[in-house]
Amino acid sequence: MKKLINAPGDVVAESVAGFAAAHEDIVRAQFDPTFVVRRDAPVAGKVGIVSGGGSGHEPLHAGYVGVGMLDAAVPGAVFTSPTPDPILAATRAVDGGAGVLHIVKNYTGDVLNFETAAELASLEGIEVRSVVVADDVAVEDSLYTAGRRGVAGTVLVEKVAGAAAERGDDLAAVTAIAQHAIDNVRSMGVALSPCTVPHAGRPSFDLEEDEVEIGIGIHGEPGRHRVPLESADRITDHLLDAVTADLRLRPGERVLLLVNGMGGTPLSELHIVYGHARRRLEEAGIVVARSLVGNHVTSLEMQGASVTVLRLDDALLELWDAPVRTAALRSGL
Amino acid sequence: MKKLINAPGDVVAESVAGFAAAHEDIVRAQFDPTFVVRRDAPVAGKVGIVSGGGSGHEPLHAGYVGVGMLDAAVPGAVFTSPTPDPILAATRAVDGGAGVLHIVKNYTGDVLNFETAAELASLEGIEVRSVVVADDVAVEDSLYTAGRRGVAGTVLVEKVAGAAAERGDDLAAVTAIAQHAIDNVRSMGVALSPCTVPHAGRPSFDLEEDEVEIGIGIHGEPGRHRVPLESADRITDHLLDAVTADLRLRPGERVLLLVNGMGGTPLSELHIVYGHARRRLEEAGIVVARSLVGNHVTSLEMQGASVTVLRLDDALLELWDAPVRTAALRSGL
Repeated sequence: MKKLINAPGDVVAESVAGFAAAHEDIVRAQFDPTFVVRRDAPVAGKVGIVSGGGSGHEPLHAGYVGVGMLDAAVPGAVFTSPTPDPILAATRAVDGGAGVLHIVKNYTGDVLNFETAAELASLEGIEVRSVVVADDVAVEDSLYTAGRRGVAGTVLVEKVAGAAAERGDDLAAVTAIAQHAIDNVRSMGVALSPCTVPHAGRPSFDLEEDEVEIGIGIHGEPGRHRVPLESADRITDHLLDAVTADLRLRPGERVLLLVNGMGGTPLSELHIVYGHARRRLEEAGIVVARSLVGNHVTSLEMQGASVTVLRLDDALLELWDAPVRTAALRSGL
Repeated sequence: MKKLINAPGDVVAESVAGFAAAHEDIVRAQFDPTFVVRRDAPVAGKVGIVSGGGSGHEPLHAGYVGVGMLDAAVPGAVFTSPTPDPILAATRAVDGGAGVLHIVKNYTGDVLNFETAAELASLEGIEVRSVVVADDVAVEDSLYTAGRRGVAGTVLVEKVAGAAAERGDDLAAVTAIAQHAIDNVRSMGVALSPCTVPHAGRPSFDLEEDEVEIGIGIHGEPGRHRVPLESADRITDHLLDAVTADLRLRPGERVLLLVNGMGGTPLSELHIVYGHARRRLEEAGIVVARSLVGNHVTSLEMQGASVTVLRLDDALLELWDAPVRTAALRSGL
């Protein structure tokens, strides 16, 4: 295992500390229990938004903490759900009196621990609602999941919900728009190589030299099938076809197209995938109204990519375009 | 070789096309000869700024085209200098009547081809000046370079020069501030793994399972020495010590600290490197006034990182903080 780390047990704490120092104008970090909050939390009268999950998917979630997006992110150990304790602490830290929304990726541990934290927060008088992101169309149940997994679509849900909270929507409205985004987003990914969890010290699975895994999970969970390495265009077809069929996209609809890197794939390759996916959508009469290409929900150094499509309406478009200032996503001038 | 590509010969064109489509609000691309320009180029009365070089270092350079930074980027084949023809075409395309600055990384092919393009542009009546970035302290001469190589510091030079041009500085002033940034920036990198150029089909060099290369070039050129894999803190020490010694940093000085990923290293590891480098600088009495952490000047899917330090003064600080809107770097709200 070759990694730029010190002790495997220190990876998360050291990484969070470095992240918070590099972005001290946007966030601050707390340790024991460990979470990251926006600098000005809690914002009085604003719905607080907390997300989190196992580490190893950076920039998710801490990279999306800031004005217009998350109020706090709770990192667990690598590929391991955070316990209720830091989730509760983060929930308290962002409670500005208007309630708190938990955005949870659909993994059994995450769902349970966020639920426990929400119950404990309720006992303290904090109103908490939760939404569960389950955008991965690859498989129905999985290694750590009952139902579909939550993957790259999570970033889009966090952006939309964050913008709604920032403009002053109440907890019911923020929850509703987050759920609306969840209902309209689908993803599927491919792995060209595995990744290595620091504590494990060896690759999470094996792939032959000429083999890729279609429908991979973001922790290396099995996907739909392994196929010989094909061209970028054919691989993109596999992912996009599954996503658009599940979304039941119709000609004339507007979408946001996200091509997400798994961590170890060059940006140039992601843009090749994007170019083909966009052409395919346009040929089908779909309007690609917004785009995002880059490493947003990663699996450590895994080589691979995922395709996410969010069906847009005016409400989602306005929230997507709203100002945002986080480490990993910023609006322009 | 496992890559998300179609034919190796189509990588650059398809990637540039996908990039331009994904960022159509910021740039447009031209093909044959191939370059990327900001959407509103040429901007009348503004100094135009052109950079470029071999592909494979994305987001450099096209990712930095936009308001407040580059007017055009010229991508060569992977790890291969662009020919004078597209550089000349890009120079014409950004000439708003106030002259054009070429920002060139110090590789023999780049220097020669930008020089030829500048001469041809001069014959057409376009005033062109050039600066050469040579920030890599690792080695004096290298595989493709006489003198020091130009590496991650290039992004900082492009930002500073772009901001100066955007506020209306004339060609002499933009050239002077770019040179001032060059004089005050130093970098050094480490590789944990090689990368594979699509046309070559096999890794550019070999490293043993427990070995890293200190002082690696961004094309996999040899560095200072190979050492057994050490802790992130010790590796960071090697890089930072070389950089700060060469810069002759003194207590009380302000710097921008850039920790750059080579493409295949997780963001979490870059933040561990950043955290240690920052602590070391602060212990030495240096003020880390600004920071940048991420994959900015990459080497395809290489695992590794580099540390860059830019000595700041009020002039550079103001230009660094100026608004910018590019695919890879944006100011916040």
